[in-house]
Amino acid sequence: MAGNKFGNLFSLTTFGESHGLAIGGIIDGCPAGVKIDQKIIQQDLDRRKPGQSKIVSQRKENDIVEIFSGIFEGKSTGTPIGFIIKNKDQKTKDYNHIKDSYRPSHADFVYDVKYGFRDYRGGGRSSARETAIRVVGGSIAKQFLKDIVVQAYVSRVGDVKVEKHYSELDLSKTENNTVRCPDLATAKKMEELIKSIRKEGDTVGGIITCVVKNVPTGLGEPVFDKLHAQLGGAMLSINAVKGFEYGSGFESSKFKGSEHNDIFQKDGSTSTNYSGGIQGGISNGMDIYFNVAFKPVATVMKKQKSINKDGNEIILEAKGRHDPCVLPRAVPIVESMTALVIADHVLIKRTNKK
Amino acid sequence: MAGNKFGNLFSLTTFGESHGLAIGGIIDGCPAGVKIDQKIIQQDLDRRKPGQSKIVSQRKENDIVEIFSGIFEGKSTGTPIGFIIKNKDQKTKDYNHIKDSYRPSHADFVYDVKYGFRDYRGGGRSSARETAIRVVGGSIAKQFLKDIVVQAYVSRVGDVKVEKHYSELDLSKTENNTVRCPDLATAKKMEELIKSIRKEGDTVGGIITCVVKNVPTGLGEPVFDKLHAQLGGAMLSINAVKGFEYGSGFESSKFKGSEHNDIFQKDGSTSTNYSGGIQGGISNGMDIYFNVAFKPVATVMKKQKSINKDGNEIILEAKGRHDPCVLPRAVPIVESMTALVIADHVLIKRTNKK
Amino acid sequence: MAGNKFGNLFSLTTFGESHGLAIGGIIDGCPAGVKIDQKIIQQDLDRRKPGQSKIVSQRKENDIVEIFSGIFEGKSTGTPIGFIIKNKDQKTKDYNHIKDSYRPSHADFVYDVKYGFRDYRGGGRSSARETAIRVVGGSIAKQFLKDIVVQAYVSRVGDVKVEKHYSELDLSKTENNTVRCPDLATAKKMEELIKSIRKEGDTVGGIITCVVKNVPTGLGEPVFDKLHAQLGGAMLSINAVKGFEYGSGFESSKFKGSEHNDIFQKDGSTSTNYSGGIQGGISNGMDIYFNVAFKPVATVMKKQKSINKDGNEIILEAKGRHDPCVLPRAVPIVESMTALVIADHVLIKRTNKK
Amino acid sequence: MAGNKFGNLFSLTTFGESHGLAIGGIIDGCPAGVKIDQKIIQQDLDRRKPGQSKIVSQRKENDIVEIFSGIFEGKSTGTPIGFIIKNKDQKTKDYNHIKDSYRPSHADFVYDVKYGFRDYRGGGRSSARETAIRVVGGSIAKQFLKDIVVQAYVSRVGDVKVEKHYSELDLSKTENNTVRCPDLATAKKMEELIKSIRKEGDTVGGIITCVVKNVPTGLGEPVFDKLHAQLGGAMLSINAVKGFEYGSGFESSKFKGSEHNDIFQKDGSTSTNYSGGIQGGISNGMDIYFNVAFKPVATVMKKQKSINKDGNEIILEAKGRHDPCVLPRAVPIVESMTALVIADHVLIKRTNKK
Repeated sequence: MAGNKFGNLFSLTTFGESHGLAIGGIIDGCPAGVKIDQKIIQQDLDRRKPGQSKIVSQRKENDIVEIFSGIFEGKSTGTPIGFIIKNKDQKTKDYNHIKDSYRPSHADFVYDVKYGFRDYRGGGRSSARETAIRVVGGSIAKQFLKDIVVQAYVSRVGDVKVEKHYSELDLSKTENNTVRCPDLATAKKMEELIKSIRKEGDTVGGIITCVVKNVPTGLGEPVFDKLHAQLGGAMLSINAVKGFEYGSGFESSKFKGSEHNDIFQKDGSTSTNYSGGIQGGISNGMDIYFNVAFKPVATVMKKQKSINKDGNEIILEAKGRHDPCVLPRAVPIVESMTALVIADHVLIKRTNKK
Repeated sequence: MAGNKFGNLFSLTTFGESHGLAIGGIIDGCPAGVKIDQKIIQQDLDRRKPGQSKIVSQRKENDIVEIFSGIFEGKSTGTPIGFIIKNKDQKTKDYNHIKDSYRPSHADFVYDVKYGFRDYRGGGRSSARETAIRVVGGSIAKQFLKDIVVQAYVSRVGDVKVEKHYSELDLSKTENNTVRCPDLATAKKMEELIKSIRKEGDTVGGIITCVVKNVPTGLGEPVFDKLHAQLGGAMLSINAVKGFEYGSGFESSKFKGSEHNDIFQKDGSTSTNYSGGIQGGISNGMDIYFNVAFKPVATVMKKQKSINKDGNEIILEAKGRHDPCVLPRAVPIVESMTALVIADHVLIKRTNKK
Repeated sequence: MAGNKFGNLFSLTTFGESHGLAIGGIIDGCPAGVKIDQKIIQQDLDRRKPGQSKIVSQRKENDIVEIFSGIFEGKSTGTPIGFIIKNKDQKTKDYNHIKDSYRPSHADFVYDVKYGFRDYRGGGRSSARETAIRVVGGSIAKQFLKDIVVQAYVSRVGDVKVEKHYSELDLSKTENNTVRCPDLATAKKMEELIKSIRKEGDTVGGIITCVVKNVPTGLGEPVFDKLHAQLGGAMLSINAVKGFEYGSGFESSKFKGSEHNDIFQKDGSTSTNYSGGIQGGISNGMDIYFNVAFKPVATVMKKQKSINKDGNEIILEAKGRHDPCVLPRAVPIVESMTALVIADHVLIKRTNKK
Repeated sequence: MAGNKFGNLFSLTTFGESHGLAIGGIIDGCPAGVKIDQKIIQQDLDRRKPGQSKIVSQRKENDIVEIFSGIFEGKSTGTPIGFIIKNKDQKTKDYNHIKDSYRPSHADFVYDVKYGFRDYRGGGRSSARETAIRVVGGSIAKQFLKDIVVQAYVSRVGDVKVEKHYSELDLSKTENNTVRCPDLATAKKMEELIKSIRKEGDTVGGIITCVVKNVPTGLGEPVFDKLHAQLGGAMLSINAVKGFEYGSGFESSKFKGSEHNDIFQKDGSTSTNYSGGIQGGISNGMDIYFNVAFKPVATVMKKQKSINKDGNEIILEAKGRHDPCVLPRAVPIVESMTALVIADHVLIKRTNKK
């Protein structure tokens, strides 16, 4: 119930604080016989790591995953896959100044109330460092999913947004630029915005769009575990996420039903896809697509008023190397959580019929 | 895994199709000694029922809950609370015409693929009738929560929206009008819009805003079970919901961090509340608030092209008595799912400290 | 966590006290397309009901199951199967004398401590009446299992026991006698023993043996969810059960390894079956068999010393119509819990391989 | 569902094969603020390790636990505790001869059927090596339980058994001898038996008795999660366990109710304790005690007939260093699983009352 396990049949359990010895996790329920290529996992991790470009945090965390079990002769054995990533470059001293302070819009205050005390080093468990483990788990899930392709990209940074629909974009261009936006002209503007925000010592939010292709019909359960409810819950569990919408999303609230309905074609596909590939909570074989809204990172390089443990006013100023915009690094995280949800439901679907 | 159970420690499991003999559920984990007033449950059910006003479905379903267990001498005993609502006014004949047809943007098609066949009467399990059981469960959860108050209202219908922030509204006026909007001038416009949409035989979507007050600090778990992730998953499991955002939501993507941070005051409260009462996934004692987007109902009183089981094109026209806009009836459903999430986390919180 | 749900993929959730309006349950996860014959469920219920013979309780509870959902045109739809059994013949007055008393070896005392108060009528939730719902669930599970046959029988009552191994018995004779023992000579002695025990106003314990035939290889999970661990947990959850052993059981503690090992034959079967059909927690295709020990029922028709709520000594004497020996009625309960475990693992097995 | 997680609120998830790089686990749900002494964990591990005396396996596995997270300044933080034990002394070559063979009464055959292939080195996941992780988890659970004391001892080896009831023994003497039996005269006989069995190249089974003292009243849930059902399931999940009984156990089947009932004394305690400290599935404050039956280890140093993958007959002869009797090393494992069950229910109990 402590919420460190995600998924039912294909599940990921994680542990680890920002500045402990290591973070890690266990993938349980991955069927036997899946080819697992550790290099692909490492590639996904590299897409998430800090220091990979000039617009993200300049920390050097050369995250190397060590897998201990569950894979034999290159294939999953059906038993749990345990793994860790050692924490390096732990400048614990950087955090002594926040030991007794509550950073605005961080979890420091609520942790102290909830647990009585906290591992204050680098945010401890509340640090986004935890998401590296999600990327390992998601990468294994993707290798299980094989032909079901999950692709995310940055569609908005602050006021700069991609105007085109995902279906008009060449998503293979996403990795061609540091901001991970497949619309290259917009990507350039996003990068410039992020650079100027960084210069101010500030941060900026944005939106990631995610698309899942080649989805079999029938994933998702009709009531509480609707496929989009599970995807939404998964996305909202990522640090800094403030909103989720799928298919026509919030815009749908303005539509009339007669305009919004997706008309079936003879082959069962639909001529429009306002449904976002999900009807009644169950995938219908069309592309699944959704948007995930990220707030600006709370750690800014500016002086801010706050309080300490004793309720006294203090002035805080962040030190260290932080992200002006997490969106580029969050793309593989969004993909990973999506892959974990889909993998879980691929297995659940096997139990639907006699 | 079939997704008919919601919650962990305070849980609701439901059953029932639209046109079976009854729908029902089990609340498990409600602590012993909670005063349960069956009249309050009935009041909440009456807020959801069709036929309560001119702008909702004119079906007469006078839903009466029958509770079988778990309550003794007016108090919960700590054992499961089992209950049913009998289905009445079941005009099964109304649905024979859709037996072999796939209604656009309904679950007919995906059910047939997923299960091999379906109970086609009134949509079976995919019918929103199922949400009546959520209201019973939510009403019990509210009685457990007591001083933690959950209040939802309609903040948008099509293009008509409440411009004011929830904190500027008198939420006690929500129940004064058929549309359940506390801003009475806007409520009037919404009602007119719904009436005109109904005349066209069409439907319209909208947004419900929900506010939770008097929330203790420390609800929610740090990683996968962040409080807003659980609320989001809960909302997205409600029929017709397409999006969820909390606090500053999608707008936050346009903010800078220095503007968006909520500055602590000496007492631990914050001067702004962009966080929506949740930091790092854990409640911080401020009001929780969020928006839920509903698409327009798929059942329209207009001719629509579709296909049947054999892939042949057909023309469908809905019969029966349907809602032009589900928002007014969805208010107690949103509240109920919210109450279930909060109740679950109130119990989980009891296990956080030595 | 309140323990009213059993199973993961094929699950049963139950509610209901002995003297409430009804008891009931929900089967969730039964795959779609399974033929469900309500008459077979009723037959299993009739095997459990009191009043069926002279050696069981003479209460008249003509338990009729009412199924509300999840079955359409004689087949499971894949959605939850909700059902109730109404409580009749509720002589609540019979129990007023125990309102403030703690019956020896009953749950009265622990309920009062755990919950603060209790529904004292007929033992409330602690009554074995709850097991009727397990029989309904188990009967549905059996219909899903089809060719996997679960057969239990009474192998011991007090000092009277069946000397033969199950494989030497004709299990089809089990239902030929009121005590449900397929060895008819022994059955006769058991009946006589039970009758004489009843005359004394006393009760007696015994052992039920259960056999599962035609089990596919591969059911059960290697570590915590070993098939026999799940069966053992299931059996021990039945009222009055004090012990469980499978295969060679407690006797195995006296064996040497060289004598105890089951030698494989060319076809993968084994020449002996001390393993009880399970190796490393996983079924190996041989018969599964196990023993379940029941204590004598605590309710005796004799004067007993006890205490009341205030800690004062009292003399209790049971009223009503009770079982001198629960074994004959427990046979279908043991079968039902077995079927639920096996059904769950048949579904889990579908997820083992790529 | 793959069964590598144990417990609900206080849970242990494990991974690791006998001959992979490491085995490990995650304790989730340990409340914040519990003092955790790593030396105590190491002591418990040392009680389980091979090579500690002449009557156990002579393998040298100096198991050192490395804890990565969840503990800060000597106390649990409320976040998951991740840890590993590296595998050393991995003589993989020792196992090449069983790559294509099925050892009698091992899991080789069922793994191949279930998963399509297996990590054959040292039994892979089916190896009892996995239980080292249970000991780490259990040791943390014990430190949370503090005054609730769990003590197990060997009460039978083959034909040699302790005749006294646990209450007549001085359990503090358990660790004084290599066989872990507090009755020293019997311990001596057990050691001699084990030594002579080893000389034969054979193995022998036995029984472990476990006692839990200072148990608060109210642990355990009334229906499926009865405390003894959870304890039984936990014990049966330990390698080589074939049976479980609590309180009067299998003997109770011979009793009359009037003899078996535990009569309450004025203070709520009972004059006898046939109930084994649990009534209606809920602890009543008396000592909990139970027996766990272990079969003889399947790996014998004698030639045995078996088959290989192709169904051909072969002759197998074990190599390596194996245990003639696992009982002495299983004592801390039984204690650990007991502590995990009790810890879970201590947390669940916090949610029982308003």
